[in-house]
Amino acid sequence: MIYLDNAATTYPKPESVYKAIMDAMKDYGANPGRSGHKLALKAGRGIYETRELLSKLFNIKNPMNIIFTHNATEGLNLGIKGILKSGDHVITTTMEHNSVLRPLMALKEKGVEVTIVKCNNKGEVNVKDIEDEIKENTKLIVTTHASNVTGTIFPVKEISEVCKKHKLLYMLDAAQTAGVYDIDVEKLGIDILAFPGHKGLLGPQGTGGIYIKEGLDIPQLKEGGTGSKSHELFQPSILPDRYESGTPNTPGIIGLGAGIKYILDRGIENIRNHEKKLTDYFIKNLKRIDHVKIYGPQDSERQAAVVAINIANEDSSEVSYVLDSVFDIGTRPGLHCAPLAHKTIDTFEQGVVRFSLGPFTTIEELDKAINAIKEITKEIN
Amino acid sequence: MIYLDNAATTYPKPESVYKAIMDAMKDYGANPGRSGHKLALKAGRGIYETRELLSKLFNIKNPMNIIFTHNATEGLNLGIKGILKSGDHVITTTMEHNSVLRPLMALKEKGVEVTIVKCNNKGEVNVKDIEDEIKENTKLIVTTHASNVTGTIFPVKEISEVCKKHKLLYMLDAAQTAGVYDIDVEKLGIDILAFPGHKGLLGPQGTGGIYIKEGLDIPQLKEGGTGSKSHELFQPSILPDRYESGTPNTPGIIGLGAGIKYILDRGIENIRNHEKKLTDYFIKNLKRIDHVKIYGPQDSERQAAVVAINIANEDSSEVSYVLDSVFDIGTRPGLHCAPLAHKTIDTFEQGVVRFSLGPFTTIEELDKAINAIKEITKEIN
Repeated sequence: MIYLDNAATTYPKPESVYKAIMDAMKDYGANPGRSGHKLALKAGRGIYETRELLSKLFNIKNPMNIIFTHNATEGLNLGIKGILKSGDHVITTTMEHNSVLRPLMALKEKGVEVTIVKCNNKGEVNVKDIEDEIKENTKLIVTTHASNVTGTIFPVKEISEVCKKHKLLYMLDAAQTAGVYDIDVEKLGIDILAFPGHKGLLGPQGTGGIYIKEGLDIPQLKEGGTGSKSHELFQPSILPDRYESGTPNTPGIIGLGAGIKYILDRGIENIRNHEKKLTDYFIKNLKRIDHVKIYGPQDSERQAAVVAINIANEDSSEVSYVLDSVFDIGTRPGLHCAPLAHKTIDTFEQGVVRFSLGPFTTIEELDKAINAIKEITKEIN
Repeated sequence: MIYLDNAATTYPKPESVYKAIMDAMKDYGANPGRSGHKLALKAGRGIYETRELLSKLFNIKNPMNIIFTHNATEGLNLGIKGILKSGDHVITTTMEHNSVLRPLMALKEKGVEVTIVKCNNKGEVNVKDIEDEIKENTKLIVTTHASNVTGTIFPVKEISEVCKKHKLLYMLDAAQTAGVYDIDVEKLGIDILAFPGHKGLLGPQGTGGIYIKEGLDIPQLKEGGTGSKSHELFQPSILPDRYESGTPNTPGIIGLGAGIKYILDRGIENIRNHEKKLTDYFIKNLKRIDHVKIYGPQDSERQAAVVAINIANEDSSEVSYVLDSVFDIGTRPGLHCAPLAHKTIDTFEQGVVRFSLGPFTTIEELDKAINAIKEITKEIN
């Protein structure tokens, strides 16, 4: 299959990722941080190495401020629910994924005020619109780094500056950017960063995490055994233990480490440039095809390697089905767990066919996708 | 290494588990339940098959009542926090793991009444003691199936009958029993069952789950994208989607399925009998060694394949360290994330050295462990 669904999860992963996971399971498949024997210690070291690699990637001073979670969604829930209390006000945008919007809607029912700033039809936010919504009780701004629907890149640094100016916290959802964009939490002024392990970071599914800035006191979502302070009935306050109850996904986290090593070796700039080149090539060729409507900025400088299209008024699921069944090309159709984004770009009824490229996508694969789209459009009268 | 730390995580796993995980990652490493292309559908089917296998194993009528979680701890948090509200009363025991006690202590601070019934020095609970604590506002009884410290098996059926008699909910922590004991949620009358995927069920770390009886309306811990009802800003109420936000650990869950297939093929009774035989053999030989103190029932009919000991007044960590470094035997020392259990069996200061056996443990390995313990006791004056 020509896999163009990398925004859902990257596939394939580097060979070194598969190998690291298999080694962790077969050679030292013990429970880290509990027992003290060599296999348990080796598993614990493996997890710590991934923490260090993430620290290097995101310029995080203390690896202990990185919490491993089941996925980015859990990290977003932890951060959002940990910060916002009844009476607080939060600002977000219409381009957010349901992993941000649904926790906010749940909090709204508990007395949190939520403002959702409308983006333009390319999915772009006007930072002034965000600033205009700030009130006395505003505590947090949470935005995506890049839309999972249109790829639109958000002006993170500008939003962060607004946060600093008004003494608000800034939480970034890096689901579509971690591992491809240079994210420096210090330079960008990010207080909380949520990231999946299995997308741009090239780890396996079942991994993700959150960076919590030193000194932020966020309540945990879960309590349990931490392998630390076992004599206490209360959750320990030390990081990362406070947020990492129960057995972690040890082989997954070690595989994630191998993914990050691959990124650091290949160079994050090289990966980004590869994806930019492919994105521009794909958009340029799509523009030449009649009946194809392309969403988003249509410029790799302003969007991630995500290209959303429709063909005339065809149902996006139907197009995606033909791409899969006739042309062996994997894409995602419909609404992409981001209902307001689809309202913003006016595709709430039709959905979009999303082509999302990855570090292993090739020009040849895109040529086949372009030809397939041409074939499909021939059916349009 | 002679690995006798199976209560922390089973090691090794059956070869078929490693293979299933690798196939899922390499051959169809897509995101299940999101896109509609063949790889995504295959990943989704793999997850559903594991749900069906679990249903078969636990006699659960509807596979959709099984929720996959990051680990058993998350399942316990989901169940405990979902059921108990301020003003409710819950009964548990001193033999519980911190994965039960710490969520309860967190709820206690929010107005939930918690009664912890004291067990005897073998870790055994008197069901009458539980029943005596029932009050007007009692809503839930939560107990372990078998202690992770002493292996003591709890009288689940009797406790469940008390629950039915008083119209209470019964939640079972099957961390040490799922995959080794015949757990029939219907026959045993279990309303909520929490289980790890990576212990007796022989799946990889990063897996676990919870069964929620049909009709129980438990609030979710997290909201997010579910791949279903993407047009809605509110969390869908259908199961399992309500509780499974974000990308699941697809290869892990598929590996868990392979673990359950192995159990069903070998026969759960055969695994249990294997572990019983080994447990009795180990205890019988330990009893012959001077200076060795054995905790728990010391009878495989009444305990899981977990044997906790101490050698005279030696620090348990020191003994475990020698077992590892000199004899290449992996055990767990200290307090086992179950502080009240250690108070119950009077090992809060010394901890215990825990030997936990698994489906692949052999008599030869136990002979080596027995000889190692003999050697260590020779140092005692």
